[in-house]
Amino acid sequence: MKARVHVTLKPGVLDPQGKAIANALHSLGFDGVKEARQGKVIDLDLDDTDAEAARARVDDMCRQLLANTVIETYRIEVDP
Amino acid sequence: MKARVHVTLKPGVLDPQGKAIANALHSLGFDGVKEARQGKVIDLDLDDTDAEAARARVDDMCRQLLANTVIETYRIEVDP
Repeated sequence: MKARVHVTLKPGVLDPQGKAIANALHSLGFDGVKEARQGKVIDLDLDDTDAEAARARVDDMCRQLLANTVIETYRIEVDP
Repeated sequence: MKARVHVTLKPGVLDPQGKAIANALHSLGFDGVKEARQGKVIDLDLDDTDAEAARARVDDMCRQLLANTVIETYRIEVDP
């Protein structure tokens, strides 16, 4: 079973990498970019066969390792 | 208008960061993880008001800056 985790910075948390992307886009002539923010996406290939069990396990992984819940939020998609 | 770009390594391209995540998950007891791969997600806030124009512009951004098309693929979502 495949699962995908999106990890993004919470609104208000400073994102220097996103700022650098926005600046680089401006210098390439893409003036219409008001803001850019960068996050991570983690694709997991799991042994689980039950979608609900897989989602619960991935939620554990996020809280223990994949996301820093102080500054980041995460969203889980399970693809049976 | 908001756009989201997913940038992921092409299949077969070595992903040391994903490998490190899989190893860390195993050492935390998540033995059911067969593979992990990490990609990037970039959220853009654009001036454009036309979805098709925005998509074309973001496609230009991807080819010029956001993705290395030799080893990465990208997918664009435009959210009007």
